[in-house]
Amino acid sequence: MLAEIITIGDEILIGQTVDTNSAWLGEHLNTYGIEVIQITSINDKKESIVAAIKSAENRADIILITGGLGPTKDDITKKVLADYFGASLIMHEGTLQRIKHIFESRGRSLIQANIDQALVPDSCEVIPNTKGTAPGMYFEKNGKIYVSMPGVPYEMKAMMENVVFEKLNKQGDNYAIVHKTITVVGVPESHLAQIIESVEDRLPSDIKLAYLPHLNLVRLRLSGKSILRSEVELMTDIDTNFEKIKELIGNVWFKGDQGIAEIIGTMLKANKQTIGTIESCSGGFVAHSITANAGSSAYYKGSLLTYAYETKVRLADINQDVLNNVGAVSEEVCEAMAKNAKQKLDVDYCISTTGIAGPDGGTADKPVGLVYIGLAKPDGSVEVKKCEFHGTRLQIIERTAYTSLDMVRQAIDAAR
Amino acid sequence: MLAEIITIGDEILIGQTVDTNSAWLGEHLNTYGIEVIQITSINDKKESIVAAIKSAENRADIILITGGLGPTKDDITKKVLADYFGASLIMHEGTLQRIKHIFESRGRSLIQANIDQALVPDSCEVIPNTKGTAPGMYFEKNGKIYVSMPGVPYEMKAMMENVVFEKLNKQGDNYAIVHKTITVVGVPESHLAQIIESVEDRLPSDIKLAYLPHLNLVRLRLSGKSILRSEVELMTDIDTNFEKIKELIGNVWFKGDQGIAEIIGTMLKANKQTIGTIESCSGGFVAHSITANAGSSAYYKGSLLTYAYETKVRLADINQDVLNNVGAVSEEVCEAMAKNAKQKLDVDYCISTTGIAGPDGGTADKPVGLVYIGLAKPDGSVEVKKCEFHGTRLQIIERTAYTSLDMVRQAIDAAR
Repeated sequence: MLAEIITIGDEILIGQTVDTNSAWLGEHLNTYGIEVIQITSINDKKESIVAAIKSAENRADIILITGGLGPTKDDITKKVLADYFGASLIMHEGTLQRIKHIFESRGRSLIQANIDQALVPDSCEVIPNTKGTAPGMYFEKNGKIYVSMPGVPYEMKAMMENVVFEKLNKQGDNYAIVHKTITVVGVPESHLAQIIESVEDRLPSDIKLAYLPHLNLVRLRLSGKSILRSEVELMTDIDTNFEKIKELIGNVWFKGDQGIAEIIGTMLKANKQTIGTIESCSGGFVAHSITANAGSSAYYKGSLLTYAYETKVRLADINQDVLNNVGAVSEEVCEAMAKNAKQKLDVDYCISTTGIAGPDGGTADKPVGLVYIGLAKPDGSVEVKKCEFHGTRLQIIERTAYTSLDMVRQAIDAAR
Repeated sequence: MLAEIITIGDEILIGQTVDTNSAWLGEHLNTYGIEVIQITSINDKKESIVAAIKSAENRADIILITGGLGPTKDDITKKVLADYFGASLIMHEGTLQRIKHIFESRGRSLIQANIDQALVPDSCEVIPNTKGTAPGMYFEKNGKIYVSMPGVPYEMKAMMENVVFEKLNKQGDNYAIVHKTITVVGVPESHLAQIIESVEDRLPSDIKLAYLPHLNLVRLRLSGKSILRSEVELMTDIDTNFEKIKELIGNVWFKGDQGIAEIIGTMLKANKQTIGTIESCSGGFVAHSITANAGSSAYYKGSLLTYAYETKVRLADINQDVLNNVGAVSEEVCEAMAKNAKQKLDVDYCISTTGIAGPDGGTADKPVGLVYIGLAKPDGSVEVKKCEFHGTRLQIIERTAYTSLDMVRQAIDAAR
């Protein structure tokens, strides 16, 4: 079965909101053997919505629509769908009761716009919204399925998980779809392609190789899609091919769709080693990158976030005179931070960061993007790397985190 | 002028990558008076690419295509475009020299796939890639503009900023497009709509109001688009309407497209107060949410990230016996964390978080999602909130951060 996702809302087109719903839907639909053929984001004008639905009908069996179901005047999806299917809007008693209950429990009074949210086209099946007020709608017409859901991610996800996936699953067809990914570190995409060319050239026609480069990681994905072979058969074939790839590239690969933080987590856990951080310019993002991974408490002990000068002195015993003489953004301070925090946190590795994330605070000597990254290692030595990053504040913060974590990877790798 | 964005790559359709390029493009094109009419994400099959381009030609004057320009076999965009425009591929000497230089400077040897990246359709203008190897391509045909760029965000952005925006700007037409947003806190969307209905109903036809709810924030955006009125006229009108809206809603609004962390930053700066954090389960994400904002060093001093039990004792003087008796995830420990860290960091407000972010580590007594959030206030008192969050590890981390920051907002608000 093929699905198309239509997201409605000017906020996506003008870049005020990043469309994360579609990625979530794509990922989950795949596990039900449903392939997403296109994602279409449009504005909330009637003609755009109708045109997108008509166009999607030419490509897909299932059309998932998110957005435009709020209680305010800019939300017109429900009305457009009712017109499109020639349906009348009727009051859905269950939804009305639920909305009343929500407002009562919050001590808020109900207004007409809230009551109107319980109106639904008479030809749809209502999908209860367990996380908000706007109901979802499920239509079947001319052998196609149409699902309309709110754009609020947790409301949409609850509807998919509670109702829609199961309904779609029953529709099923015979396509098996599987994906598997490994992450390769430190080999450029083009070289990787050359190294594994012999495997790629001999892949069966129902298995496809994709390269997803990001900084110095490349994710290699093998995707199988077949109407003749089962998921198990496809996956066995994918596993065999990954084994061949791994042989060709040596020990630079990691399981799954891993980021650098997960990779060093795997390495630290295998070595029964611990890590800590002391951050200034990266403002907690190195810590967050590590702790975003489940199970990180097995190797991550904690951090000092010494954002202010004063905090560097109070928490990390950085010498006030050194700070005054060379400034916080310096090799000396970076080294002392890593060294002192390693001891305070009692860890094997300790990352330190200090720099200027901008957009303000740069000088001719120390421009925005200048970042020192330190790594205290188990033998007590401290490596300090001077980096000059470009980009926005967030990009500088992200690159600082990535680079620091890759320094850990290289250090662990060198030690083995 | 109307633009359509086409993003090519299975990774978006299967949810392995979130499409952030389109949001960036939409936001920036708007500032050049170019409206994005549709965003279309497709797989990297020739027929999908051709169909998407043909369809976009019916809607847009400018077609921006990202993705599918890598050196590997799954990247076919360049070949498809050459065929589509009836062009031959020729070697672009400037690009070849640049690629050679990149590989030499990294001490890597050049392979055929790298050389082939310098091949371009003979009918395009080459857009130099200052951040990577694949060149961009600019075509004009039958009054339409087609731009093909890599999907790697920083390569695409550099091409837009260095070359494409300026070229598109020269095309210009007479539409003025402006947007302005304010953020409203703590008023549900439907109530807000009722309160400001009188303003909304009297908006001129070239100004449109949108509601963007997120947790207990609602962003209100006024968008003006006109061929008759100038940007200045539209913005003056938008400002007047926002003044009326602000009068109706009172002091619950904040400037611009602000998140909760930016909002408390504004409040703290106005009060010349400081804040610090001590985090456990949120793993640095509260700190990151605060420090992601430029200028946060004016009010944010730092954090203790006491992830391990041992670190809570060592860094935050949490009593080992209390930890043993009631556990780290408890009201007592949460309160002590906030109190002790407030003193250590010497701040006016101090947030503490301790909980179970999951997916493992939950028990019947203390399930995944149980989070205590503490806030030590200027008067020395500590408020502790017990929360039961649902969702994935990252959602629990995000909600912890959001809730903690909203506690700060309410506390500052109550104190004035």
